[in-house]
Amino acid sequence: MTETPKTPLSQQELDVFERWWRAANYLSVGQIYLMANPLLREPLTLEHTKPRLLGHWGTTPGLNFLWLHLSRIIREQDRDILFVAGPGHGAPGVVASTYMEGTYSEYFPEVTRDEAGIGRLFKQFSFPGGIPSHAAATTPGSIHEGGELGYSLSHAYGAAFDHPDLVVACVIGDGEAETGPLAASWHSNKFLNPTRDGAVLPILHLNGYKIANPTVLARIPKGELEALLRGYGHAPIFVEGDDPETMHQAMASAMDQAFASIREIRNAARAGDTPSRPCWPMIVLRSPKGWTGPKTVDGLKTEGFWRAHQVPVADLAKGDHLAVLDAWLRSYRPEELFDEQGRLYDDIAELVPKADKRMSASPYANGGLLRRPLRLPDYAMHAVAVSGPGQATAEATRVLGGWLRDVMTANRDQANFRVLSPDENNSNRLNAVLEATDRAWEAARYDYDDHLAPDGRVMEILSEHTCQGWLEGYLLTGRHGFFSCYEAFIHIVDSMVNQHAKWLKTSREVPWRQPISSLNYLITSHVWRQDHNGFSHQDPGFLNHVATKKADIARIYLPPDANTLLHVADHCLRTRDVINVIVAGKQPDLQWLDMDAAISHCSKGVGIWEWASNDRGEEPDAVVACAGDVPTLEALAAVKILREQMPDLKLRFVNVVDLMALQSPEQHPHGLPGETFDALFTLDKPVIFAFHGYPSLIHTLIYKRANAANFHVHGYREEGTTTTPFDMTVLNHLDRFHLVSNIVRRVPRFAARTAYVEQSVRDKLVQHTRYVREYGKDMPEISEWRWE
Amino acid sequence: MTETPKTPLSQQELDVFERWWRAANYLSVGQIYLMANPLLREPLTLEHTKPRLLGHWGTTPGLNFLWLHLSRIIREQDRDILFVAGPGHGAPGVVASTYMEGTYSEYFPEVTRDEAGIGRLFKQFSFPGGIPSHAAATTPGSIHEGGELGYSLSHAYGAAFDHPDLVVACVIGDGEAETGPLAASWHSNKFLNPTRDGAVLPILHLNGYKIANPTVLARIPKGELEALLRGYGHAPIFVEGDDPETMHQAMASAMDQAFASIREIRNAARAGDTPSRPCWPMIVLRSPKGWTGPKTVDGLKTEGFWRAHQVPVADLAKGDHLAVLDAWLRSYRPEELFDEQGRLYDDIAELVPKADKRMSASPYANGGLLRRPLRLPDYAMHAVAVSGPGQATAEATRVLGGWLRDVMTANRDQANFRVLSPDENNSNRLNAVLEATDRAWEAARYDYDDHLAPDGRVMEILSEHTCQGWLEGYLLTGRHGFFSCYEAFIHIVDSMVNQHAKWLKTSREVPWRQPISSLNYLITSHVWRQDHNGFSHQDPGFLNHVATKKADIARIYLPPDANTLLHVADHCLRTRDVINVIVAGKQPDLQWLDMDAAISHCSKGVGIWEWASNDRGEEPDAVVACAGDVPTLEALAAVKILREQMPDLKLRFVNVVDLMALQSPEQHPHGLPGETFDALFTLDKPVIFAFHGYPSLIHTLIYKRANAANFHVHGYREEGTTTTPFDMTVLNHLDRFHLVSNIVRRVPRFAARTAYVEQSVRDKLVQHTRYVREYGKDMPEISEWRWE
Ligand SMILES: Cc1ncc(C[n+]2csc(CCOP(=O)(O)OP(=O)(O)O)c2C)c(N)n1
Ligand SMILES: Cc1ncc(C[n+]2csc(CCOP(=O)(O)OP(=O)(O)O)c2C)c(N)n1
Ligand SMILES: [Mg+2]
Ligand SMILES: [Mg+2]
Repeated sequence: MTETPKTPLSQQELDVFERWWRAANYLSVGQIYLMANPLLREPLTLEHTKPRLLGHWGTTPGLNFLWLHLSRIIREQDRDILFVAGPGHGAPGVVASTYMEGTYSEYFPEVTRDEAGIGRLFKQFSFPGGIPSHAAATTPGSIHEGGELGYSLSHAYGAAFDHPDLVVACVIGDGEAETGPLAASWHSNKFLNPTRDGAVLPILHLNGYKIANPTVLARIPKGELEALLRGYGHAPIFVEGDDPETMHQAMASAMDQAFASIREIRNAARAGDTPSRPCWPMIVLRSPKGWTGPKTVDGLKTEGFWRAHQVPVADLAKGDHLAVLDAWLRSYRPEELFDEQGRLYDDIAELVPKADKRMSASPYANGGLLRRPLRLPDYAMHAVAVSGPGQATAEATRVLGGWLRDVMTANRDQANFRVLSPDENNSNRLNAVLEATDRAWEAARYDYDDHLAPDGRVMEILSEHTCQGWLEGYLLTGRHGFFSCYEAFIHIVDSMVNQHAKWLKTSREVPWRQPISSLNYLITSHVWRQDHNGFSHQDPGFLNHVATKKADIARIYLPPDANTLLHVADHCLRTRDVINVIVAGKQPDLQWLDMDAAISHCSKGVGIWEWASNDRGEEPDAVVACAGDVPTLEALAAVKILREQMPDLKLRFVNVVDLMALQSPEQHPHGLPGETFDALFTLDKPVIFAFHGYPSLIHTLIYKRANAANFHVHGYREEGTTTTPFDMTVLNHLDRFHLVSNIVRRVPRFAARTAYVEQSVRDKLVQHTRYVREYGKDMPEISEWRWE
Repeated sequence: MTETPKTPLSQQELDVFERWWRAANYLSVGQIYLMANPLLREPLTLEHTKPRLLGHWGTTPGLNFLWLHLSRIIREQDRDILFVAGPGHGAPGVVASTYMEGTYSEYFPEVTRDEAGIGRLFKQFSFPGGIPSHAAATTPGSIHEGGELGYSLSHAYGAAFDHPDLVVACVIGDGEAETGPLAASWHSNKFLNPTRDGAVLPILHLNGYKIANPTVLARIPKGELEALLRGYGHAPIFVEGDDPETMHQAMASAMDQAFASIREIRNAARAGDTPSRPCWPMIVLRSPKGWTGPKTVDGLKTEGFWRAHQVPVADLAKGDHLAVLDAWLRSYRPEELFDEQGRLYDDIAELVPKADKRMSASPYANGGLLRRPLRLPDYAMHAVAVSGPGQATAEATRVLGGWLRDVMTANRDQANFRVLSPDENNSNRLNAVLEATDRAWEAARYDYDDHLAPDGRVMEILSEHTCQGWLEGYLLTGRHGFFSCYEAFIHIVDSMVNQHAKWLKTSREVPWRQPISSLNYLITSHVWRQDHNGFSHQDPGFLNHVATKKADIARIYLPPDANTLLHVADHCLRTRDVINVIVAGKQPDLQWLDMDAAISHCSKGVGIWEWASNDRGEEPDAVVACAGDVPTLEALAAVKILREQMPDLKLRFVNVVDLMALQSPEQHPHGLPGETFDALFTLDKPVIFAFHGYPSLIHTLIYKRANAANFHVHGYREEGTTTTPFDMTVLNHLDRFHLVSNIVRRVPRFAARTAYVEQSVRDKLVQHTRYVREYGKDMPEISEWRWE
């Protein structure tokens, strides 16, 4: 490794660095406290301060310090660096730096680069009509929301993949480091390829505290910490202390060393000279929480303690608090930082990198700018030949895998598509993708390994969190991806989905943010076909979760077979700024629609299957509706039983692919107009609905519809274990027999015949249960059932 | 550390160990494959095998190996050991071992200890009407469900806390180790006190693979792995290889060493001799996946590779598969293991520890047996004095904190109560608890630290997953706990809640499982009062999530003030086997009910507040309903406006504390009977409902009710940012003004006056928005609003 000097900064540089940092800190504190008198040109009074003091100071000086030192590297080495602030609650710092870089005024012209602009910058922070207290989509240069902690490092890796010139500097809070998602994501370095990917420079910000506790990593012996970081595969560089001058020199030196090491790793790899996984550098910044803030407040330790986390001195009317604030603000000597007009002095401003190189203006942070649409090969080439309903069998996700392989191939030279899964790619039957690429793997490999390679584009780590974080980072920086997951365990990322949905919603309101690719999920190994597993793997509630999100963000599709799945997947990969959830089975299943029918059906979202209906020209006695592959099968089987047993019963068969179409158009952009919905589902006939998920979800979606009270939904009732596929439906009353009995029961003109039908159904169910318990498989009449 | 011999087993012991292990492996394979001919006394035919081959072999031989060696320690050292199988999908192994210990036959008498019993043991596995393929509540000796991976280690710690004599042996899959929750939970050792708590012995099972990939930890250099484990604070003991004899000796020696070290740490600590946090031992078992299984199948590497994960040889009708299975099964030489009757030979059976010492019969694994009820001090002592509605102000959670402090004190000598939070205990204003105890902390401490102590009972780590896992482990082994969390981020544990709910549901159906304490959540820092934070912290969807769970498991309470919160919390801490979610604010808020009224109101769950209603003796024009503290305030303010502006409007005011009471009694045990519900909410009057969460949840709960179509719900619409409290309600139309306009609009006889009311409301809203944007706080008429 190149030797780097220990004191790389000249005295003059040191001086202006020190002033930059003071300015950034001043602007940060100002945002938290001031709504007038921004440059303290008058004596500070209570009236200048905000009535509600909201924000987080503790982490801020560290962020400001790092921003400054990363900018030096950019200037000196002409680097592309993206800044990810794990402690995004340190928004006052991030915002201050982006303001000092001028970007803020470019994006928000009213926040001018003068005293009035500083006044506006201050007032708007954590203020109604202003900006939130966390880094968010409104923050220039940010792809990372300050909020739920734990995702900075996986976001950073996602951003670095396939961006060979980029270095993502990722500040990780020592509190954040305690979270599961963060702890897991350290191992991302086993999936990053120095040849084709950028680099991630983790910076562990060991300020010792979180909200009201010390942090674990700050309170273990240094040897243990170093072992841990080496165990993660990093070479840590420690920068520790609190004396600004010494710390500036130490940090400059650490940065030089880290970036030299990154350059060496890159060069070696790109020269074809990487015998083994590189040991990437990282930086540990151990500095006081709330550094440069008040040492004590009311006699209690504040700087270097958790009391500095939010607003270190509040209740400004109390005791000496206003004086403490005044002294604190003036300790930065604003008059040495801003000129008469309130502009940064030139020598300070000269520290700003040029144009797009400014971290606040990085196009990587506004991924829509970089995004190129995916090249999508014709999915019809993968169509399953279906000569008539139920005349073919296919594994839907395996068919999809074939198309995804072609997508992979078509976009190989664009290097902007990855497929992710928590060790389930093959289990989810997307194996074919591995014909076009490998699984990314930078750790040791053996000759008997299967499709592992450093430049694979299938990303598999047994962490739903890490997969999700990688994907978000990848999308947010302008690329495309596809995430397949067991249905039950996608709940693991519920909260990450929330945060991403919030990001999307906000970014749509930010004029300079360009749309990014949608977050696409394939939810498979679903509740009804958990053959190798049991109750613990059965949970369709992710749909409920997604359905609570802002309507124009959430989309849910339940294609009933392979051809509809192909169509839906193609559609989803074309969309932007939404979250698409596709639910589809992986088991061999009957196929219903040929490609033309599939296209026509999916384009409508909800449609009558005429071949399964016998109400043409008449009012139906009941509507049999379904959504999901297994429910569709059972609903069709129910219809067939009724056709045979009660040919005079008029049934309409409706299949729902686009679940949100059930909502009203005011609720969701996909919502069917009232007339269409009423025409399909009638105004007053019973609707027996076989649904993939929890029945409550259907009721939630349709409660505004005229016929809502007549919907009777069969779905998952939280019953089940390791059993046969059909038994799962029986346990939850989603099977054809329960459907039959419910349909018949709801049609008044058949009241007299209900008892007999119900009895035959009960007989069947008894027979079924005895059979499966004896033979361990479904009755042939079930497993070999065909539509015709 | 005591020197332990490298080959502790005599040749004779080795021999019987080897046979035990063969027997356990044989019984495991038999469960996966056989439904007849259990001891292979006839030539194996296809008919003897199951039609559907379901299960996981790969991890199983390792589990069997470890079970055997832990049992040796129990026998030789008279230890209490609890076994946690992280890879709980290795149920065939766990079940085999519990069968060999006799426990299985004690709990399931039909599974006798003879050939017929083995036949039943085999057939029932992954078979309809039998047992699931994962360790579950049905598995003797287990507190840990095999399903979603990642929670073994936090469960283990939860079980060890306050069980000073216990050692929890926790097998961690190397795949599982990649998950976030598992990665975070290694640091649990900074919260375990060797004096009062038991010990956890992590056993990392490095079998190299997960479903279809190698594992990260198996493919990094050994030095890196060792550094990582030392970084976690452990002294790892490596047991590596595949030769059974050598491995038995190595494992016996490793166990001796580990338990000697545990004993030394304990003794030192309990002799008052612990200068610093101990370095606990752990074991790394590096052995082939599917050890002793077929080396290859169809020419492909199987033993020692991921192909061994599930059913290594399937499609038994194909090629030589049946012969491969036959040879595999016979390689264990069942005739040397089971006598004529099919009973384990005596010398093997003698390896079983006695009675309760058997891991399969550990009372720690059936926590309800050990559970002692909490001593609950009188919460009325903490009542806020409320002379009339809105005549007092209090911070509800702070009041609760006072009572929790007393609960802590009352149970100190029982040592069976802990309070958990992800670094938010004080932020959630439960500070008072720290007057009765400290925060648990075994890492370094400084003199200025605040309430940190090795024996604290407030557990704070910045990992919702770890808190949840600890609490589950603590409850499952017979104790009590209380988890407080920010509302938005409790979603992080959505999937863990699912798994626990499933455990509870199943365990209720297992006759020998005793009820355990409920999982109690206080959800605070809720969506409406995220003052320091913004949009990222606003999500009330955990309620939707919990509401999807099996009805007799889920309870949701929204106490509107401090006294109702006290009552609800007291109730929850008395319940068993359910999940209680309490939502309550932490900000100073108006108080409505004195203690008597609170008790009466909460006992009903839903009730009319007569003092806020003016419909007595008449039909109301509309019902104003509310659930949650902020909605209650806004609903009351709306009523007050209407009283003044339209005194002839007859309104009934209904407050909901027990949300599930809205469901019908068939749906939920708390559901109000139809007549009661209809009496409260009328059959046909508009119900304007101000709700804490997403409006859809109310519609979901009430869709079966007669008056469902007349419910108009105001709640969270996914709008918000850092702003004033009242502005949050305005952004989401939950505020008094939007409520007023909706109420008036719904009452036909006031149609003529609607326009004027709406106009005055709109004026107010404009005024509000201008005010907050100028002053950054709510208008005095809002912030100083009082009921009277
Ligand atoms: C997952 C999650 N849990 C809890 C919180 C609440 N919270 C906000 S800041 C914070 C402490 C963060 O500490 P650290 O990461 O060390 O940041 P810093 O010290 O730099 O402020 C916590 C617990 C959160 N934001 N996210
Ligand atoms: C959170 C989660 N994600 C995915 C799965 C699906 N899954 C089941 S077993 C398994 C591999 C487990 O590997 P490991 O922990 O090494 O266990 P072992 O090798 O001992 O079988 C996976 C990914 C799961 N059970 N849980
Ligand atoms: Mg910190
Ligand atoms: Mg493994």
